[in-house]
Order: sequence, then C-alpha cells, then structure tokens
Amino acid sequence: MGKKLTVLGPGLLGASLGMSVLERGLFESVHVWSRRPETRDKCRTLPWCTAVHDSPEKAIADADLVVICTPVKIIPDLLEKLSEDFAEGSIVTDVGSTKGSICKAAQKNLSDKVSFVGSHPMAGSEKTGLEYASADLFEGQACILTPTDETDPTATAKLEDFWSQLGMKVGKSSPAEHDRIVAAISHLPHILASILCEQLTKSNPEWKSFAGKGLRDTTRVAAGDPNLWRQILEENSTAICEALKNFRGTLESFSNALEQSDFEKIEDSLAKGKTFRDSLG
Amino acid sequence: MGKKLTVLGPGLLGASLGMSVLERGLFESVHVWSRRPETRDKCRTLPWCTAVHDSPEKAIADADLVVICTPVKIIPDLLEKLSEDFAEGSIVTDVGSTKGSICKAAQKNLSDKVSFVGSHPMAGSEKTGLEYASADLFEGQACILTPTDETDPTATAKLEDFWSQLGMKVGKSSPAEHDRIVAAISHLPHILASILCEQLTKSNPEWKSFAGKGLRDTTRVAAGDPNLWRQILEENSTAICEALKNFRGTLESFSNALEQSDFEKIEDSLAKGKTFRDSLG
Repeated sequence: MGKKLTVLGPGLLGASLGMSVLERGLFESVHVWSRRPETRDKCRTLPWCTAVHDSPEKAIADADLVVICTPVKIIPDLLEKLSEDFAEGSIVTDVGSTKGSICKAAQKNLSDKVSFVGSHPMAGSEKTGLEYASADLFEGQACILTPTDETDPTATAKLEDFWSQLGMKVGKSSPAEHDRIVAAISHLPHILASILCEQLTKSNPEWKSFAGKGLRDTTRVAAGDPNLWRQILEENSTAICEALKNFRGTLESFSNALEQSDFEKIEDSLAKGKTFRDSLG
Repeated sequence: MGKKLTVLGPGLLGASLGMSVLERGLFESVHVWSRRPETRDKCRTLPWCTAVHDSPEKAIADADLVVICTPVKIIPDLLEKLSEDFAEGSIVTDVGSTKGSICKAAQKNLSDKVSFVGSHPMAGSEKTGLEYASADLFEGQACILTPTDETDPTATAKLEDFWSQLGMKVGKSSPAEHDRIVAAISHLPHILASILCEQLTKSNPEWKSFAGKGLRDTTRVAAGDPNLWRQILEENSTAICEALKNFRGTLESFSNALEQSDFEKIEDSLAKGKTFRDSLG
C-alpha cells in the first residue's frame, strides 16, 4: 500500500497493528504518536516503532496510510484538527467501534486530496493497553468498512486489501447500518454482561465462589474499561436504545411465559436461541 | 468410600464420573443403568463400565454410592420408584441442577437405612451426551452439597470428600438457598444468552458474519439442549422469576439512564459490573 504507516494512539489495537504490519512487510516504516509522554517513551523501546513523534502533525507527514486508534470520542476532534496536515493522496482510517459521527466529521473536515474510509476491526478484548498487543490479534476476526457515497472506491479497495492481509474477514456497510449492527451484536451483549454483574453485586458475596465456566464466559466482556465503554455507548446511544428496547420486549415475553408456566413457549424460545448460536459456529 | 459405585443415567456427567472415579481408584467397580438400550449397548464397549444393567434395581444392588445423573425431571420419580431397593447403609446422591423438589422427594420416600444428600457439581457444558465425557471434567469446578437438618452428617462429610477427590471445590447450602444461588449465577445468565440469541434471529442474517469473540463467549451457553433447560427452568421457576424480576429492574434503570443521557450513571453501572467480573477471576 505504500512505505509509511502512521498509527495515532498506540493502544492494544494500534500497537498490534504496528507489529502485524512490520511482521508481514506491508509497510517499510511505522510512525506513531501518543498523547501521553509515558506511552511515547515506552514506544521508543519497542522494535516495531520506526519513529515516535511528539505531535500528530509530525507523525502523519508523508504517511501513505494513517490509522487513528485513539479512544473513539477523540477521533472527530483529531480529524478536524489535522484536516490540513494529512499528506496529499494519503488514505486515512480509524478503528473506532462507532462510525456515524466519525464518518460525518471526516466528510465535513477533510479535503478531496485525502481519502477517508471508516474501519472497525472487531478484534478488541476486555484488556486495553499496548502491553497486551500481539501481531496476530486481527487474524480470523471480522472488520467492517464504512464507505459512503462520497468515498473514493479505490481507497476502499486498498483498505479492504490491507485488513485482509492482516487476516481479517472484511465486510462493508454504511456508517449508520454499521452502528445498528454493532449495537445489536456487540454493545447490547456488553450491556447485558455488565448489568448481570451489577445485579450479582447485590447478592450474597459468597455465591460468587460457585460461579462456573458459564457465568465466566457470559460476563467476560464486562471486565472492559468502563470509561471507554461509556464513550462507545455515548456515541452510539440511539442505535443502542433501540436494540435495548427490542431485547427488553423479548425478555418480558419470556418472563411472562415463565410466570404463566407456559413451558412450550419457553422451550420454543430456547430452541430459537440454540439455532442462532449453533449457526455462529 | 467403598467398593461399588452405581451411576444411573450415564450422560456427560455420569460418564465423566465413571471415568474419573476409576482413574483415581476411588471405587473398585462402576455399575451403570441407562433407560435407553442403545446407551446400554454403548456402555458395554467402554472400559470404565464394570457392568451394565437392564434395570436400575439391579444396578443399585449392594452399591456403596449411587449417583443419579438422569435429566433432572426424572430424579424425584426414580427416588420414589427405587426407595425400597437401595442397599442398607448406602449413600445416594444426584447431580441435578435444581435441588428443592429432589431433596423433598428423597426425604419423603427414602428410609432411614439410606443416606441421601443432594449434590450439584457445576461442571456441565453446552454439550450433552457421554461421547463428550472426560475424566477431568470436574477438576477445579464448584460443587454444592445440599444437606438438610435431617441429613446424616457422616454421609455429608463422605460426599464432600468424594467430590473433593475428583478435584472439585465443595460448598454447602440448604436446597432452597441452592436454588436461589443457581437461579442467579447459572439460570439467569443462561436465559439472557438465549434471549439475546432469539433477539438476534430477528435481525438481518448477514449481521451474523460480523460476530466477534465477545458475542460468541456471551452466548456460548445458549447452545445448550432446549429440552434439558426447559426442565431446569420448570423445576426452578420460582427462584428464576425472582432473579429475572430483579435483573429486569436493573436493566430498566440502565435503559432509562441511557435514554436520558445520564452517562455518569452509565459509567457507574459499568464500573460496578467490572468490579464484580474482576473479582470472579
């Protein structure tokens, strides 16, 4: 795709990206910028960081591809702030887990000489921070690209190729549909895991010692960073409210069936759930 | 504990028990009975089955320990049917995931010459059937014993020792408290996973291709057998209705906070959830 990749915000995803790209020889150099001086110092010791910059403007100079990996809330501001500094002909993307407001900010602020396409590599973890980074984080995972009607198709194709080379299964949707998809398959499951854990804090603390693998798996994502997830829910609250409303309706029907001892309906619900889960593989 | 162990209903748990007990030399022989002729034929080919019987009465004759591993709904009837046939001085237990009605049936039907203590080894899986059995299924998992005021403490101590020798972390509670515990930490999580999957069947089927590890983990248990789970929910519906009511209240508060953009409250909920999940390890 080019010679120089710039990662803005080398956390778990950004650092994994840098490692992965160099290991596969997709770029000659990986330049990074982090808001935090201590992260910049850390990066200077890491073999995959070709250069560490004190400002994002310096980091993106002459970059062929810029991937913004900062917390999702900062991305629109960064796009606005850096709008004049992206190199002519460069491709800019991000890894934010919501896409509506980010794609709007890109469309509003970036000039025609730069191609922006939103990316959402779904390869996060409940762990955050570059110390958990690994070169195979993306392998086998899904990535959603969110081109709009204004997006240059060549840039979309190049990015599709880029994520595929990191081992990802790439799909495409509009930014708005993306946000509805992740509300349903990622944000809603996260909320249910969190609320289940919140609910269990109200029980006898000794009950915890009986927790099995089922509870551990069901709630694993609830260990995610509350502030990062607050930002995600804030960015995607409309789609999430809709998903929550639908879920609560289905849960209410199930509860009513249980209270009325309608076990045919209960088994039918469980069977539908199993069919879906089995189809996930 | 003795020479002869009898397993009634060698499914995933019963077969794993047989394998595990012989591997550790805890009993000299493992006798089994299954309702299904094809399962009995299968058992005759398995190295850990010392003897396979065509009737439960024959299987339990002279047994030192009888472990009933059939589906939970059948256990009370079996206890009634076999009440006169358990060997004098034998210990009888079960592995059912609800305990209230089973312990009541034991108390009502068994004579003083037999000691019954309910067990719930929490070592199941979304997979069922003896082909998934393994000798280390119980290793490191929790087991709840449910002695009552009438239970012989010697029998309870022996069973505690038995499950411990299979690697389990053994705890005790009353049958009623057990049912509230599992409603909260096992049955409610199962229902949420199932309903989430049922809800997702109503979405665009293409969205499924973007499912990540988070969704897979959160919903893994929903692949469980719908008919087995119907029985569990049927047996424990009172405690589950209570747990569901509480959960739905907490979820409603969260939804309201999201609709009102009260993100301080959202972050507070997420943080409480994380604290609980982190404490599970």
